[in-house]
Amino acid sequence: MIRAKVIGAGGYGGVGIVELLASHPEARIAALVDVTDVGAPLSNLYPHLTGFCDIKIVDPADPVAKQEVDVVFTATPDGVGMKLAQEVLSSGAKLIDYSGDFRFNTAQSYAEYASRIGRETQHAAPDLLPQAVYGLAELHRGDLDSRRKIVGNPGCFAVSCILGLSPAVKHGLVEPFSVICDCKTGVSGAGKKPSAGFHYPARYDHMNVYKLAGHQHVCEIERELSLQAGGEVRVTFTAQVVPVCRGIMSCLYGQLTKDIKAEEVIGLYKDFYKGSAFVRVFDRNATIGSMHVRGTNFCNLIVDVDARTRKLRVVSHIDNLMKGQAGSALQNMNLLFGLPETTGLMRAGMYP
Amino acid sequence: MIRAKVIGAGGYGGVGIVELLASHPEARIAALVDVTDVGAPLSNLYPHLTGFCDIKIVDPADPVAKQEVDVVFTATPDGVGMKLAQEVLSSGAKLIDYSGDFRFNTAQSYAEYASRIGRETQHAAPDLLPQAVYGLAELHRGDLDSRRKIVGNPGCFAVSCILGLSPAVKHGLVEPFSVICDCKTGVSGAGKKPSAGFHYPARYDHMNVYKLAGHQHVCEIERELSLQAGGEVRVTFTAQVVPVCRGIMSCLYGQLTKDIKAEEVIGLYKDFYKGSAFVRVFDRNATIGSMHVRGTNFCNLIVDVDARTRKLRVVSHIDNLMKGQAGSALQNMNLLFGLPETTGLMRAGMYP
Amino acid sequence: MIRAKVIGAGGYGGVGIVELLASHPEARIAALVDVTDVGAPLSNLYPHLTGFCDIKIVDPADPVAKQEVDVVFTATPDGVGMKLAQEVLSSGAKLIDYSGDFRFNTAQSYAEYASRIGRETQHAAPDLLPQAVYGLAELHRGDLDSRRKIVGNPGCFAVSCILGLSPAVKHGLVEPFSVICDCKTGVSGAGKKPSAGFHYPARYDHMNVYKLAGHQHVCEIERELSLQAGGEVRVTFTAQVVPVCRGIMSCLYGQLTKDIKAEEVIGLYKDFYKGSAFVRVFDRNATIGSMHVRGTNFCNLIVDVDARTRKLRVVSHIDNLMKGQAGSALQNMNLLFGLPETTGLMRAGMYP
Amino acid sequence: MIRAKVIGAGGYGGVGIVELLASHPEARIAALVDVTDVGAPLSNLYPHLTGFCDIKIVDPADPVAKQEVDVVFTATPDGVGMKLAQEVLSSGAKLIDYSGDFRFNTAQSYAEYASRIGRETQHAAPDLLPQAVYGLAELHRGDLDSRRKIVGNPGCFAVSCILGLSPAVKHGLVEPFSVICDCKTGVSGAGKKPSAGFHYPARYDHMNVYKLAGHQHVCEIERELSLQAGGEVRVTFTAQVVPVCRGIMSCLYGQLTKDIKAEEVIGLYKDFYKGSAFVRVFDRNATIGSMHVRGTNFCNLIVDVDARTRKLRVVSHIDNLMKGQAGSALQNMNLLFGLPETTGLMRAGMYP
Repeated sequence: MIRAKVIGAGGYGGVGIVELLASHPEARIAALVDVTDVGAPLSNLYPHLTGFCDIKIVDPADPVAKQEVDVVFTATPDGVGMKLAQEVLSSGAKLIDYSGDFRFNTAQSYAEYASRIGRETQHAAPDLLPQAVYGLAELHRGDLDSRRKIVGNPGCFAVSCILGLSPAVKHGLVEPFSVICDCKTGVSGAGKKPSAGFHYPARYDHMNVYKLAGHQHVCEIERELSLQAGGEVRVTFTAQVVPVCRGIMSCLYGQLTKDIKAEEVIGLYKDFYKGSAFVRVFDRNATIGSMHVRGTNFCNLIVDVDARTRKLRVVSHIDNLMKGQAGSALQNMNLLFGLPETTGLMRAGMYP
Repeated sequence: MIRAKVIGAGGYGGVGIVELLASHPEARIAALVDVTDVGAPLSNLYPHLTGFCDIKIVDPADPVAKQEVDVVFTATPDGVGMKLAQEVLSSGAKLIDYSGDFRFNTAQSYAEYASRIGRETQHAAPDLLPQAVYGLAELHRGDLDSRRKIVGNPGCFAVSCILGLSPAVKHGLVEPFSVICDCKTGVSGAGKKPSAGFHYPARYDHMNVYKLAGHQHVCEIERELSLQAGGEVRVTFTAQVVPVCRGIMSCLYGQLTKDIKAEEVIGLYKDFYKGSAFVRVFDRNATIGSMHVRGTNFCNLIVDVDARTRKLRVVSHIDNLMKGQAGSALQNMNLLFGLPETTGLMRAGMYP
Repeated sequence: MIRAKVIGAGGYGGVGIVELLASHPEARIAALVDVTDVGAPLSNLYPHLTGFCDIKIVDPADPVAKQEVDVVFTATPDGVGMKLAQEVLSSGAKLIDYSGDFRFNTAQSYAEYASRIGRETQHAAPDLLPQAVYGLAELHRGDLDSRRKIVGNPGCFAVSCILGLSPAVKHGLVEPFSVICDCKTGVSGAGKKPSAGFHYPARYDHMNVYKLAGHQHVCEIERELSLQAGGEVRVTFTAQVVPVCRGIMSCLYGQLTKDIKAEEVIGLYKDFYKGSAFVRVFDRNATIGSMHVRGTNFCNLIVDVDARTRKLRVVSHIDNLMKGQAGSALQNMNLLFGLPETTGLMRAGMYP
Repeated sequence: MIRAKVIGAGGYGGVGIVELLASHPEARIAALVDVTDVGAPLSNLYPHLTGFCDIKIVDPADPVAKQEVDVVFTATPDGVGMKLAQEVLSSGAKLIDYSGDFRFNTAQSYAEYASRIGRETQHAAPDLLPQAVYGLAELHRGDLDSRRKIVGNPGCFAVSCILGLSPAVKHGLVEPFSVICDCKTGVSGAGKKPSAGFHYPARYDHMNVYKLAGHQHVCEIERELSLQAGGEVRVTFTAQVVPVCRGIMSCLYGQLTKDIKAEEVIGLYKDFYKGSAFVRVFDRNATIGSMHVRGTNFCNLIVDVDARTRKLRVVSHIDNLMKGQAGSALQNMNLLFGLPETTGLMRAGMYP
């Protein structure tokens, strides 16, 4: 059994991986660590876990937190994982970090990211960066194996955009500076902490854009798409919140470099994802939306061409807390321990 | 493997049991029957099932619908199951019916029910009624075994009220004519068919009472509570809809027959449900609500006493589509086939 | 023109009265006072007011806050209004306080209330208590005239229960200790401050009970009903939150003291409220709910009798921020200044 | 007083104009016409109007429906207004039509529109088309005067896109074939009729794209933008539904034709709309969204430039039932009768 420790267990990212680990056939939860609610069983914070995960949250200094494990999930904001990484690795465990700390594997690319989002540009563990891999299995499956020690779990918006555009940029279908990512997220993407903008009365019948000056996921989107394209890709990115709980729907646009029919593009997409169990490709007639991936690790793509304006249009749907966070984290764990990628993740969700 | 057929597969009740059967270790779906959407894979109607249940819906007359199975779920409204029952039994299968058709096991008690809700009082298969059992395992576990052929799956509101009040009436704690059931349901309880009252703009910020003249679940509530009490119990019942999707919260009140402390009542409740894995008992300080049973088969009860007014107050929470419908149906199937009651049902749900 | 000052202008109670005053034909806003967001135009906090109320929020110590006005609304929590009252009165203004500070007009009744909710039992201005009137115009219209200086604006749940039960208790229709108030509120009732329970992801598909040990509005409900009944009335009260923004729906029950038909009770109710423009009485067949009073000062009552169990059942609907707060406050202001009670309040709301 | 008749009174478009007319100082409702719910007071269908509009709905053949009026609102789908227009004009009344019937003023441009949406291309009253004006006052105020007899009220999405892009295309700021309109609407835009996609359980936590093959509002958007640009403009348009009731948020993008700063563009926008009371222009730091125009006739624009990708980005917010429908209709009526454009429309809305 894979022994797992979750740091930041009390947040949505933490409880998400706990839910998945609790029913995973090859893993068990060894410790839940957080700096708030210390001493409380996780099921006190999340009563639905009563009888399923009554493990107590411990302080990072607690001996329970320091026991030997096989994998550590740092479900923590930027700046935490990088400080813990060396200790995790020294203990023999692997690290799967939710933040931007290990999404970039050179000190320089990290510094560019950090600078864009206004953080300290000096990484706390620059020597470890080359060991990290960007944890989007659909693109980096080959680098996610048992020799890998550190994974930078991708950002939720980034997952939706990268999966939605990679086949197109790889095949040179769109002008590299023409790409627009118009992205809507459900509110759970903002995490567990209450704030004015996510207070029910202020949110229930409301939609709005935010961070127009620049969103932290743009760097990784452009890096990954540029890698696929073999040349620089730049995106115009608009983050939006709408009153759903779970779900991201990204409308992705690019100026086509040539006349091509939707059917042909769909073929290229299906081919690109043929070994990827969690990506499904649909055409413009599909009546799907965010609810059809809720609670699952799937990414559903509608691939379309607007011939009148010569635009590629892709609509990408994920559950921001699953494929956009804990689901990808578990998928990465599976790969790092030589398990089938889908272990413990092949669930359809519930409807309605 | 238990071969299961679902009649009325295209509705919420149908897809609910399909979701559960699809991941059940001892059952498989043999046929999906409905009178609409015939020929379409269920995953066309419910795209989240793509890859999980792509079985085509067939017409009742289709040979596929007529194949031999071990259990038939009639996820159909009143009046359908009673017409199909004899044929199901003759084929050697067991019947689990979602409607009121087999919740009463004499022609007379059925007639009283039918009369109260304005239906034809003559049952279509009166000879089968004595074979039926009311499918609430927590009260009738002993009658739900491999000899049983017909189960009348309980009504959603009824489950919440009966589980919330049975220990109290059994112990004679409340005046039998003083009981009030103030019940709020999520909208999914009304099923899949669009209607004016459940149209999103008319519902999203709206709560209302309905059927003040009498709700169809009152008969079974009074019958079951009277059985537990050993004497007639009558309830004042108020059905309400609130803008949640899944969930029932019933506030249940009764005039206490004696001074008793909440702790003592809680003790009686825990004792009553000690063999029932899906019932959890909490005190008034629990911070729980409908979301903590969403997607699960649990019934969470808050048991409380208002000493100032000498009232028992119980708050009962279930997922109307799970413990209130498909979950109970699967629990009943498990019992009818000699499996542990919790098989395929021990899930915590997801949060948020 | 009535010059009005609003203290606590930045909260939902504050912006509610501002919206009403901004379109009132006989009043104008002279000052907006708060301790947070000082210096910001109210339309910065509430952009819908851009061009309608761009007045800056000032600190209580600001000269603008100290200018002479005719009426002061203290849209503040318990304990604030009582400290400011003497100064308001000395300046010649009238005080309409939103909290429990002036809902009780003897030091002793205040102390009982304060004790029940765990506050300091000594009132800060006991000498002023006899001057205060409970600001529910439908019951105390006669005491709300130009000589009145202090109004204790009623609690939102209290308004719904008192209006729903007053005619019944006045006519002795129900047993005085049998009354049950099962009350559901929308989330805006909790005010503007974000908190865990009202964070969108934790609230959107959730309903729950709270404060089972005792809600602060019970005292005033029992006091007012006892006054109407001419004898003690005690209520069992259950506060609940459901995911609507604005709205209270209270289901009110009482054991009937005699056989009486619903029609007769409805007649008594219509008679009781015949001079009250904001109360509408419906029978059990009305298809109404909380959305039909949203944004308005109306209280819609469904009056019903359950003959089988000999219970009175009344369903009371208000907008918690209007009739339950700012609307009643403005209604009270109108009466205190000799205006028709409905001035600036006769609005239908919008649908959907 | 302007005597108004509303045809299609029972739908959301009908009740919207009724709400506005009921409080308009210079108009009164003379007749409500519909083909369903005939004989019922409008307040039966919409109980919030009890006491505000209890006028009975009459059949088109009813004498009440045929009385002389000054203005007729046809709150009806495509194909109805064109058949009634001649009779309305002959009676001396003006016609304000909600559908696409009079948004195009040549038989040919109508035929192109009709063909794109799959309707009969022959207009029923081609002779009247040259008399019609497109009822977006911000662009056609000069043509909306007392001589005007027919107004084609604009489509809701179209209002948001045209107002959001007109200043930019007029000033040649964006490449005319590069424009992308990524538009999200609340559910009320689909009208009152229940359907599977707007059934609460299927909608509450769901967002999706629809009509990818072509939306009926594209024609009028391109026509109006082309008029402003003085040359052909083509847009890629993506319609989306999100779970809000009222509100449209359109994210509008265009490739800039030159380097220009956001401040400068904002200046051009403010200048363009300086006589338009209902358009407000904000910069990228504004924390506004759809809720801040709910229940109002405003269009709030965020105007932004993404210098990294040389894109113009405008976010346009309206209430689809107000500025997107009934509000614009009333604004048009005001102009047609020589009243100030804002009469009866200058309302801030309520929050939350």
